[in-house]
Amino acid sequence: MSAADLLLRDATAMAEAVRAGAASATALVQASLERVDATDGRVNAFTAVLGERALRRAAQVDASLASTNGARTRELPLLGVPFAVKNLFDIAGLPTLAGSKIERQTAPARADAALVRRLERAGAVLVGALNMDEYAYGFTTENSHEGPTRNPHDLRRIAGGSSGGSGAAVAAGQVPLALGSDTNGSIRVPASLCGVFGLKPTFGRLPRTGSFPFVSSLDHLGPFARSARDLALVYDALQGPEDAGHPHDPGCAQRAVEPVSGVLAQGARGLRIGVLGGYFHQRAGAQALAAVDLVADALGSGVSRASVELPLVEAGRAAAFLITNAEGAALHLDDLRRRAHDFEPLSRDRFLAGALLPAAWVARAQRVRRVYAEAVARLFARYDILLAPATPSAATPIGAESFEVNGHVLPVRPNMGLLTQPFSCIGLPVCAVPVWGTHANQPNQPDLPVGVQVIAAPWREDLVLRVAAALEAAGVAHAPVAALSSEETPA
Amino acid sequence: MSAADLLLRDATAMAEAVRAGAASATALVQASLERVDATDGRVNAFTAVLGERALRRAAQVDASLASTNGARTRELPLLGVPFAVKNLFDIAGLPTLAGSKIERQTAPARADAALVRRLERAGAVLVGALNMDEYAYGFTTENSHEGPTRNPHDLRRIAGGSSGGSGAAVAAGQVPLALGSDTNGSIRVPASLCGVFGLKPTFGRLPRTGSFPFVSSLDHLGPFARSARDLALVYDALQGPEDAGHPHDPGCAQRAVEPVSGVLAQGARGLRIGVLGGYFHQRAGAQALAAVDLVADALGSGVSRASVELPLVEAGRAAAFLITNAEGAALHLDDLRRRAHDFEPLSRDRFLAGALLPAAWVARAQRVRRVYAEAVARLFARYDILLAPATPSAATPIGAESFEVNGHVLPVRPNMGLLTQPFSCIGLPVCAVPVWGTHANQPNQPDLPVGVQVIAAPWREDLVLRVAAALEAAGVAHAPVAALSSEETPA
Repeated sequence: MSAADLLLRDATAMAEAVRAGAASATALVQASLERVDATDGRVNAFTAVLGERALRRAAQVDASLASTNGARTRELPLLGVPFAVKNLFDIAGLPTLAGSKIERQTAPARADAALVRRLERAGAVLVGALNMDEYAYGFTTENSHEGPTRNPHDLRRIAGGSSGGSGAAVAAGQVPLALGSDTNGSIRVPASLCGVFGLKPTFGRLPRTGSFPFVSSLDHLGPFARSARDLALVYDALQGPEDAGHPHDPGCAQRAVEPVSGVLAQGARGLRIGVLGGYFHQRAGAQALAAVDLVADALGSGVSRASVELPLVEAGRAAAFLITNAEGAALHLDDLRRRAHDFEPLSRDRFLAGALLPAAWVARAQRVRRVYAEAVARLFARYDILLAPATPSAATPIGAESFEVNGHVLPVRPNMGLLTQPFSCIGLPVCAVPVWGTHANQPNQPDLPVGVQVIAAPWREDLVLRVAAALEAAGVAHAPVAALSSEETPA
Repeated sequence: MSAADLLLRDATAMAEAVRAGAASATALVQASLERVDATDGRVNAFTAVLGERALRRAAQVDASLASTNGARTRELPLLGVPFAVKNLFDIAGLPTLAGSKIERQTAPARADAALVRRLERAGAVLVGALNMDEYAYGFTTENSHEGPTRNPHDLRRIAGGSSGGSGAAVAAGQVPLALGSDTNGSIRVPASLCGVFGLKPTFGRLPRTGSFPFVSSLDHLGPFARSARDLALVYDALQGPEDAGHPHDPGCAQRAVEPVSGVLAQGARGLRIGVLGGYFHQRAGAQALAAVDLVADALGSGVSRASVELPLVEAGRAAAFLITNAEGAALHLDDLRRRAHDFEPLSRDRFLAGALLPAAWVARAQRVRRVYAEAVARLFARYDILLAPATPSAATPIGAESFEVNGHVLPVRPNMGLLTQPFSCIGLPVCAVPVWGTHANQPNQPDLPVGVQVIAAPWREDLVLRVAAALEAAGVAHAPVAALSSEETPA
């Protein structure tokens, strides 16, 4: 199999091929760089391609394998696998843009982010930095400074955001793995719209050292992949508090690593699964609801047919909205005062509004969030897993200001995350699994995916990944590489 | 020894006497109720005396001792010891006032607070509820609804606050133990001004279930006592997360109990001790500085003579001020809107101001606090213990609006805690130890105590209590019962 063909498989397959000597890290990384070169003019997922660094690193991996002491290298789980990261992760030598124009003037990062270091330690090779909504505030990756990232499955549509470059790069077959961040849905929304797997771990599970913050009490980091087994593999490589000698992330729990790769084969057996109704039914379109039905059908007898209400969900989402708005604005207050004109025009007004919120509202929002978290925690006495759509619809057209959800017309940029926000604001682990075949196709229009959220109690990433793997095995969830035939051009 | 004489000793001595059969719980509780009756018209520490409940409970303790199965009862560490609590702790059957007039209309608490339950489980007997600054916002316990609590060592002076009733009840010999709360200094300030020992444990060490909140990210509960060994004994009875089946305090760490009573005998041997200068020198009067010198001299060779600067302390204190102001106001926002006239006139304006703070300032204050906490944490690589005055001066006169500290005239109510606030806002464990003999006496004026803070890294209550015990053994710190001769009358 050529390296170019191998690149369209998953990371597990790539690492196995390198381990078996069937491919070199250099060939895989070269194939990745070539595919980025061939497709990214249309997709616009990358904001920096690190060809020289990546090839140097791949050559080191290959040299280490060829050496007499290569046995330990051979055991690395992500051996030779190319990956890329949202441009809010520090990459030594580059300014950390976080999607902004303003940060282009900051000093280059002196070291890689903690999670970049961990993936490279596991044998993976960083090939570039990815596009995002400015300062992670948006769900569309329509970035006015860099141009919008385009959905690889329909280049006229958004990739979702704010980690749109991460979802698109994986869907486009440019890399099999990417890292993103999720404050209110920024991993799950682009995973849903780009048709790939995305994992938002429990709040506090992964160290955020060396990443650009948005809202410290809500920020999560996590991976995108094209298979559930990849997600488990990369998650196991990422887990655990920051290593000694590096700055500590005060939001990261000092919790031992709990590997999950070995438990996927257990599937969904024995799990009590509930389908969320109410809010999650009213605010989802027909395609999203059909996707949840497909998933529930595939999971069979463990799924309770009574629709489950998430208590206080609207208050909880409102709280997340306020906290995000106020803390985000506080983080950028100096720049908002001095150079508001340099902000993303599509989110500038929301940042300015956040600077005017009274503290008393936000303090109350934090209390609401706590009460909401406790109410939801009680639900997990009866359910191991909850299911909900990840987005109200499939990808909307680039440039669309609004979309219709069950008769309500809503602005896209703040609302594509209205189904994800209620889980991140209480830190639950969620996997977005990509479901196809429910799109009401127009003639000559491509099929479009939509994601389903698989949600568990805190620290139970094992359960969400078991269910994701079961859905993939049942053929309900999958993450095909977009064709991106060269005659396609953006509208 | 009569029960009345025994009441003037410490809790350890009382429990030993009951254990040995030399006194009954009933006699001790009766003596406590009688002393409250005889002295509280002048001191005004109590807002509710629970004679019936206390005598019933004491009779149960005595009956259990007399029964054939009394062996286990005999082992209870606080056997028969009377105690009282700041009136923000829930007491079944009473409305939880938190020093306010507004809460007089709320429903009676249905159960005792978690820490009240724990002390009674250890054999102690609750005898009443204690005065405080309204909603814990103030450092003087000049409560306009209940009248001011008076300092037992000079009835014309304040007891400090906001747990002024707790400090005064212990200093007046009414009870040997009391519980209070400390958000910015509300245990350490009254301990300092009343001349008793007070412990503010690490943030998250004790569950706050069943207590009226002020600022959830800053609120601590803790004990007052008349000896270091009592403080260790009561702290060991209080430790650990809330019991199963009771509401969880989300701010309480799920951390195993680490008993300290056994380690006091180690004293200060081997500890590296630093004296804080800079901010803590400039903002303390001559008596407070003399008290720190006495303590440092007594601790001898372990004390570094170079003055230690606490990095970022002014920014950290400003952050605590803002967070308190905004969160406190948010908690009472509905009442501030509808019935501002029912608030304590001495703090109403500060609450109203807090309701107007922008959220962006508070978000920034939280970040400042985190940076400050990290900077201070690094200091503990070089020191086990830090020393600082607990208050800038001894007790000021009741009604005084301002006091002078090193040439600066400051309002008393918000500033008596300016030396305590920098430690609570980063959650460090602190014991305030009472030091006497440094007061510049006027003729015919009583000697007045001032406290010294003994500060350690998070979770090292063992170290602060070892030092407190060493200072007591050296005769530098002690907590005498106030004479309260009956001819004294308030000015």
